[in-house]
Amino acid sequence: ILHANTNMRLKLPITCFILEIILIILFGVLVEYDEETDAKKWHHSNHSQYDNDFYYRYPSFQDVHVMIFIGFGFLMTFLQRYGFSSVGFNFLIAAFALQWATLMQGFFHGMHGGKIHVGVESMINADFCTGSVLISFGAVLGKTSPVQLLVMAVFEVTLFAVNEFILLSILGTKDAGGSMTIHTFGAYFGLMVTRVLYRPNLDKSKHKNSSVYHSDLFAMIGTLYLWMFWPSFNSAITAHGDDQHRTALNTYYSLAACTLSTYAMSALTAHDGKLDMVHIQNAALAGGVAAGTAGEMMLTPFGSMIVGFLAGIISVLGYKYLSPILESKLKIQDTCGIHNLHGMPGVMGAIVGAVTASLATIEIYGNGMEEVFPDVADNKRTASYQGAIQAISLAVTLGFALVGGLLVGFIMKLPIFGAPSDASCFEDSIYWEVPGDEGSHEGQLTTVKTEEFAKPEETEKLN
Amino acid sequence: ILHANTNMRLKLPITCFILEIILIILFGVLVEYDEETDAKKWHHSNHSQYDNDFYYRYPSFQDVHVMIFIGFGFLMTFLQRYGFSSVGFNFLIAAFALQWATLMQGFFHGMHGGKIHVGVESMINADFCTGSVLISFGAVLGKTSPVQLLVMAVFEVTLFAVNEFILLSILGTKDAGGSMTIHTFGAYFGLMVTRVLYRPNLDKSKHKNSSVYHSDLFAMIGTLYLWMFWPSFNSAITAHGDDQHRTALNTYYSLAACTLSTYAMSALTAHDGKLDMVHIQNAALAGGVAAGTAGEMMLTPFGSMIVGFLAGIISVLGYKYLSPILESKLKIQDTCGIHNLHGMPGVMGAIVGAVTASLATIEIYGNGMEEVFPDVADNKRTASYQGAIQAISLAVTLGFALVGGLLVGFIMKLPIFGAPSDASCFEDSIYWEVPGDEGSHEGQLTTVKTEEFAKPEETEKLN
Amino acid sequence: ILHANTNMRLKLPITCFILEIILIILFGVLVEYDEETDAKKWHHSNHSQYDNDFYYRYPSFQDVHVMIFIGFGFLMTFLQRYGFSSVGFNFLIAAFALQWATLMQGFFHGMHGGKIHVGVESMINADFCTGSVLISFGAVLGKTSPVQLLVMAVFEVTLFAVNEFILLSILGTKDAGGSMTIHTFGAYFGLMVTRVLYRPNLDKSKHKNSSVYHSDLFAMIGTLYLWMFWPSFNSAITAHGDDQHRTALNTYYSLAACTLSTYAMSALTAHDGKLDMVHIQNAALAGGVAAGTAGEMMLTPFGSMIVGFLAGIISVLGYKYLSPILESKLKIQDTCGIHNLHGMPGVMGAIVGAVTASLATIEIYGNGMEEVFPDVADNKRTASYQGAIQAISLAVTLGFALVGGLLVGFIMKLPIFGAPSDASCFEDSIYWEVPGDEGSHEGQLTTVKTEEFAKPEETEKLN
Repeated sequence: ILHANTNMRLKLPITCFILEIILIILFGVLVEYDEETDAKKWHHSNHSQYDNDFYYRYPSFQDVHVMIFIGFGFLMTFLQRYGFSSVGFNFLIAAFALQWATLMQGFFHGMHGGKIHVGVESMINADFCTGSVLISFGAVLGKTSPVQLLVMAVFEVTLFAVNEFILLSILGTKDAGGSMTIHTFGAYFGLMVTRVLYRPNLDKSKHKNSSVYHSDLFAMIGTLYLWMFWPSFNSAITAHGDDQHRTALNTYYSLAACTLSTYAMSALTAHDGKLDMVHIQNAALAGGVAAGTAGEMMLTPFGSMIVGFLAGIISVLGYKYLSPILESKLKIQDTCGIHNLHGMPGVMGAIVGAVTASLATIEIYGNGMEEVFPDVADNKRTASYQGAIQAISLAVTLGFALVGGLLVGFIMKLPIFGAPSDASCFEDSIYWEVPGDEGSHEGQLTTVKTEEFAKPEETEKLN
Repeated sequence: ILHANTNMRLKLPITCFILEIILIILFGVLVEYDEETDAKKWHHSNHSQYDNDFYYRYPSFQDVHVMIFIGFGFLMTFLQRYGFSSVGFNFLIAAFALQWATLMQGFFHGMHGGKIHVGVESMINADFCTGSVLISFGAVLGKTSPVQLLVMAVFEVTLFAVNEFILLSILGTKDAGGSMTIHTFGAYFGLMVTRVLYRPNLDKSKHKNSSVYHSDLFAMIGTLYLWMFWPSFNSAITAHGDDQHRTALNTYYSLAACTLSTYAMSALTAHDGKLDMVHIQNAALAGGVAAGTAGEMMLTPFGSMIVGFLAGIISVLGYKYLSPILESKLKIQDTCGIHNLHGMPGVMGAIVGAVTASLATIEIYGNGMEEVFPDVADNKRTASYQGAIQAISLAVTLGFALVGGLLVGFIMKLPIFGAPSDASCFEDSIYWEVPGDEGSHEGQLTTVKTEEFAKPEETEKLN
Repeated sequence: ILHANTNMRLKLPITCFILEIILIILFGVLVEYDEETDAKKWHHSNHSQYDNDFYYRYPSFQDVHVMIFIGFGFLMTFLQRYGFSSVGFNFLIAAFALQWATLMQGFFHGMHGGKIHVGVESMINADFCTGSVLISFGAVLGKTSPVQLLVMAVFEVTLFAVNEFILLSILGTKDAGGSMTIHTFGAYFGLMVTRVLYRPNLDKSKHKNSSVYHSDLFAMIGTLYLWMFWPSFNSAITAHGDDQHRTALNTYYSLAACTLSTYAMSALTAHDGKLDMVHIQNAALAGGVAAGTAGEMMLTPFGSMIVGFLAGIISVLGYKYLSPILESKLKIQDTCGIHNLHGMPGVMGAIVGAVTASLATIEIYGNGMEEVFPDVADNKRTASYQGAIQAISLAVTLGFALVGGLLVGFIMKLPIFGAPSDASCFEDSIYWEVPGDEGSHEGQLTTVKTEEFAKPEETEKLN
């Protein structure tokens, strides 16, 4: 690959300004407060104030918000010299994606008299869609410029919204915690993107593609916030009452069981029995992903724990044995191992959801069937048909993710977006003013000059 | 300036004990549970339990609490050797200020039979007032002793309460998120204080007035918590129902738009297009400040995004071009750049609030007018009159802040409070037992002895 | 003590797998959704959705959850080379303990037709019990293997559940925030364990039993989350309405007052008046512990502040003067000083609770008496009898903790669980793959080989 000038002096401002101005114009034309946010509409009818959806969902929203900005952001700070970019680009693309997602999801999920309605539920959904983009970011972490990432976000959010629309609105799939729509989609999309952006000479920066002691501790902040708030994530948009309650509970047990199997497998697969921070930081979360679809169903704590237990095992095995093969054989350079944290556990979650749905009976769900499987409750479809729909939805999602990632990868490869050279991957100082280290109290800058690694001729060719 | 002995052996304990004992006595005499916190009063009438304000506001309170202690505390850890003081003094003065604010606000906002009533709303208001003190702390960060900071808090909280009383109770100003009462007040108060405490020889410690790699990551924890929870901050004390919901939503969009313009401007104003952590850590938050007054109004997502977009631009330009001028021409040494994060965006927020208020019509607000602009709903004043009141309130606030900061600055300058010498500014080891660095596994202490930098004669003169 | 092989290759996986499989089987046999989590049961009767306990308690649960995983985990990262273990083992044993606690507490607190019911309240209770185990972990921090810790958790959770059952169900004790059940129990249990595990030659690793600059900042993350969310902790399972509200308020004031007395005492007890991070990180939290029992009572803000004020003083004095004596005279090596943070403040909280209970009158509590002291409201016992019961409960708890800790300590001492040698205490690299430091950008590993410090003959003897 030839690399363009990585200087962001004009590229980044132009991209951000154009995107934000388009967003503002579209919001001006298309977006209005929903019934629960608008002063006139809310006060038109006689509600009790606690009926406002804000009180049902805002605490969950804030937990999800923390997962998106702190959870994903700090999880990726494990790299020794890429912390600014991990947290900072995560911040940038999330702030963009949640606005764009509001429009795309609003457009596909039903306009109200030509207007997109916004409120706490749209905020949660936008954060969810953003999560999907951040998952993909994990695959290309360290190897892309912020402009490339914004370009990815533009397209990925759009495709996410289309896929989500097909699943939830057309097929009537249930996927409250997004095992399919968020995790499977984000993971396989990101894997295709990183495949297209394959760098045969990435070993030039290999020594920077690892952690240092304190960077691993920063990453644990991300891990723990994701782990703790995952029950809120999976339950944030389920139906009020028992549904939110049950989903949180199932996810809590799935994660607890997953943590034990992760520690077990991490020690078991190491030569000397030492725990590997990569596993702890990532695989312990697989239980949340795998409970994403079935979490709102009557999975039972027993079922949830089995799901989490297996997810942890699969995920560690993936990090240990599958990731090296994906890189060497399929040329998939997956920096954060999203295939192990979101990919396989996402597929597993979809399958668990399909099986659990197909086993639903009125004996188990009672009148609660209406909220979990409305089509089954209304006799529009049988439980096994619902299960089949769930399975088909997984296939649809995989198709969208893989084809979408392929196309978007090629767009991102255009040499105008300022991708770093192979030698300057995993290095903050390409895109950030970086201060010195703790040791140097003089504050001497040890930054790498923009593209000092890129051979001059390469840079010139493209300018 | 001559510097007194910085040894805190007696100064700090005496100050803390006297203040806390006064607080305890005053609480004993003046404070009682409100109707929703008192066992007898609450059970006297027949409420449903979910009518208790606790359920409407406690989640927001906790978000605000995190902003005060983690948000402000860690935002200021960017300095290489001042992390203990940033987090630790933030902790100390916040713990004091919230108690003192409870008394001052309770006194001014209406006693109940000679008693101050406390509950979740007083907790939020006390945290808000505390936020104002912490903003001022940002201006003098690294240049003051903990005793000076406590003295500042005593007076600033008092003046805050008076100003707030004039605005909210006398003038009938709307300022739920505190663009004026909290941000403008705290910023200009702090700027005046740091002006009075001007140190012409501060370059003696200039090399410590900068960040190192990991201190910038710690600061990002502060930034992100402030950013994520700002919707809770602005909505914490708005009316139940649509008001809280709408305020959170507006703030969310304002911050998202602000983030994009911040990144754009940071790259644009750098010579080599590299992002500056100072901008990302601070300017990306200006959208929350600027939506503080109008956030509860029918600002619309469109309006919110414009406000945030402009706030980010103004804030970065302030950091880049205005702060150096303030320091060189006006002798205002503003360590954290609070003028750019709280000052200008606060004033902008006040103006946006005045304009939005003056445009309020019953057509837009319906019966919700009663909650947002009760005086307009009751035909006590017109919308444009409300707008004028809002503008006057900004002037009142600026006056209180500037005059108050001037007076309090001179009090803080008294040479008995243990201010550090110029050479020992931005240095934890003056006030803290500091362990060695990560590199030195022997744990050798590399602390600076108390006032080793101060010339002996200076210290002696005052003892 | 002779040390066994610390290699965890088989020990840890076997322990984790056996424990988790037993948990899954027991959950399959014994656990079912409660009335508020089960689709059928919830929809059987006609509730409003907001009646679901989820909305009353889930935000508090999440705050408690953060305290358990981030709060306790990061509070213990103060050690220079034990951050992975602090956060990582905290994570592991908490994930195990919350599952095991669900079973033990469910068993003792009442089965429903042979089944344990789970929902948000059981989640909170399980997290509470887990907190107790993590307190004990603090005493042995750095000196135990993860397998030893899991063994400790198995027994400690069981004893916790028995003690809690005796107090809450048999004696009718009130202890919502767990001054007795959680803090006193966890502290004295842990102190006995560490007494039994006494290492006369621990000075071999003394140089690692201290902090470095950034590890103290990581620890402050833990401190502040514990401090901020303690009001949620104490109020999480109190009665709905005024009780939750009042408990949060009381705890908030107790902590604020405690912070001021902590800073005062820290400076006062230092030779040169410099603040000690150990005190700030720990003693400032004692106010939350000490308000654990009486927090839900009509303690008044005045009373709460006095309690917190004294707790801070006692705690700092403990760190400064008592801990060294405990170590030298009683051979209690208490790494985190849990006696000062949880032990003495827990006992103090129990006494405050007993006194406050004995002063309860219908004049003060009105109809709210029913919720705080149901037996007093129903004239089954007098207030002074309730007070006596509270005092007896403290004695019972101390007895259970001391005898339990003694027995469990001897079990943990069995040389099969992989305890580290004296020279390799406080060292991550015994159990973790540890990357290099920030300084070494080459990522060279500076790990300590498994048991390289242990004399070969020692290791052999036991294999």
